[in-house]
Amino acid sequence: MFNIIGLGLCDEKDITVRGLEIVKGSSRVYLEAYTSILMVQKERLEAFYGKELILADRDMVETESDEILRDADKEDISLLVVGDPFGATTHTDIILRARSLKIPTCVVHNASIMNAVSACGLQLYNFGQTVSLVFFTETWKPDSFYDRIKENMDLGMHTLLLLDIKVKEQSEENLARGRKIYEPPRYMSIPQAVSQIAEIEEIRSAGVLQPESTLAIALSRVGGSEHQRIVGGTLAELLAQPPEVFGEPLHSLVIVGKRLHHLEVEYAEEFAVNKETWRSVAQKAYGCALDG
Amino acid sequence: MFNIIGLGLCDEKDITVRGLEIVKGSSRVYLEAYTSILMVQKERLEAFYGKELILADRDMVETESDEILRDADKEDISLLVVGDPFGATTHTDIILRARSLKIPTCVVHNASIMNAVSACGLQLYNFGQTVSLVFFTETWKPDSFYDRIKENMDLGMHTLLLLDIKVKEQSEENLARGRKIYEPPRYMSIPQAVSQIAEIEEIRSAGVLQPESTLAIALSRVGGSEHQRIVGGTLAELLAQPPEVFGEPLHSLVIVGKRLHHLEVEYAEEFAVNKETWRSVAQKAYGCALDG
Repeated sequence: MFNIIGLGLCDEKDITVRGLEIVKGSSRVYLEAYTSILMVQKERLEAFYGKELILADRDMVETESDEILRDADKEDISLLVVGDPFGATTHTDIILRARSLKIPTCVVHNASIMNAVSACGLQLYNFGQTVSLVFFTETWKPDSFYDRIKENMDLGMHTLLLLDIKVKEQSEENLARGRKIYEPPRYMSIPQAVSQIAEIEEIRSAGVLQPESTLAIALSRVGGSEHQRIVGGTLAELLAQPPEVFGEPLHSLVIVGKRLHHLEVEYAEEFAVNKETWRSVAQKAYGCALDG
Repeated sequence: MFNIIGLGLCDEKDITVRGLEIVKGSSRVYLEAYTSILMVQKERLEAFYGKELILADRDMVETESDEILRDADKEDISLLVVGDPFGATTHTDIILRARSLKIPTCVVHNASIMNAVSACGLQLYNFGQTVSLVFFTETWKPDSFYDRIKENMDLGMHTLLLLDIKVKEQSEENLARGRKIYEPPRYMSIPQAVSQIAEIEEIRSAGVLQPESTLAIALSRVGGSEHQRIVGGTLAELLAQPPEVFGEPLHSLVIVGKRLHHLEVEYAEEFAVNKETWRSVAQKAYGCALDG
């Protein structure tokens, strides 16, 4: 059996009991290399499982899938992934490959940012499509995210923005010379995300994401750990915060839609940079009926 | 500490290691009574945890929250819920109550249908808002779900439909006489859901949900267990299946949006009632470029 096992969001204890049992019984266990985004080191996972882990980066999962799947028709082989196996990064390719080799597969689900985002107090069923925001460069500023957010906003729905991660990036020079030297990983922070949003709003001027009257909620290391940070406010308020307010990466950002319910406002108020602005924008710009 | 712990989707082994440790250390553990939708009995959970569980139905969580929260400022008290604590049923009320009593809270996330739905092969980020479909009666056929699906469809997005559950229902007579006698639980099945959809399409005639050219995927008991069933086809094909094809409740239904990617088609083809119709509708009605 080929098993893809979600590790959840925080540390070694977020695996499910079912997942842990499968790991312990597997003859080979791969760990997808986006581990840097798990809040724990490979060694700590290995100690907890009592098992050696083989690091598998994105390339390897894509190009060496047959090696990963080797003997999976006879033994349990497992691939561990952060979050859920079908979260933001999907693993359909390797499952399709297993299918074509007639290897049975098993998926062990877990929490991912796609459902844990609701920790901010906004209702999951009020979210529209999820949108990715990539790092701008001097010459490349893809702005289709703006259209996607506008589609959600026009319907009053919230938008989860997944912020870019650059892992195993090569400098242009190293790439040109074919040197496998990688830059340190980069994670887009909330202030970067909000400033990119402001840049595109300035150009497009469709009034979708207004600094003073659009509410947003920043999440970092969400998943119930003591490292979790949730910070709400207008886009302008979030932009004005010192970076340390948002904690360590990974960050995600939610743009609040107009179908906002007063219970959502109340719940998320706890996380607001400024509770008074939070309530007054919810009332005036979002038309929420609040007490007091 | 007041802990709300997600149990995941299948059985006693879907709890996370973190969640299990908290359960074992709690002085009182409540189990939200929607357990009937977990695929396992209370007794089996109790044996696995080595702990007695107190059943808490929806009413109790809402009206007796202070009793549930008693001593949570001094000891660990836990409430177990199926899926994720912020899944389809949310638990914000009791967390707000805990906050107002200055009781610290901890949420242990887990998989819920809101992210595990991706097991059907459709990408989560292509889903729009989630929609609930309630049981029609002779005199009450709420059809706002149709507008919500249309909003998603107009943008090309997939829609997850959560199908109604009736637990602790009273007959009109028992209700009138104040007798606390409850009907057996009812779960909306896929054929019921599809026939309600057809009924409203017939009335509205906006062409949003066409029997022969709208693809849908039925999911039951999703979560990686051997009981999981995933069945895809046109709405007409799903309606024509004998009920046992879909397995035991709970059922959910996904309406496939036009922004369908060929990899999604390929992955989900495995689940199709008829692979040829599946591919030809994806090509002709959805404009997917497929090989062959």
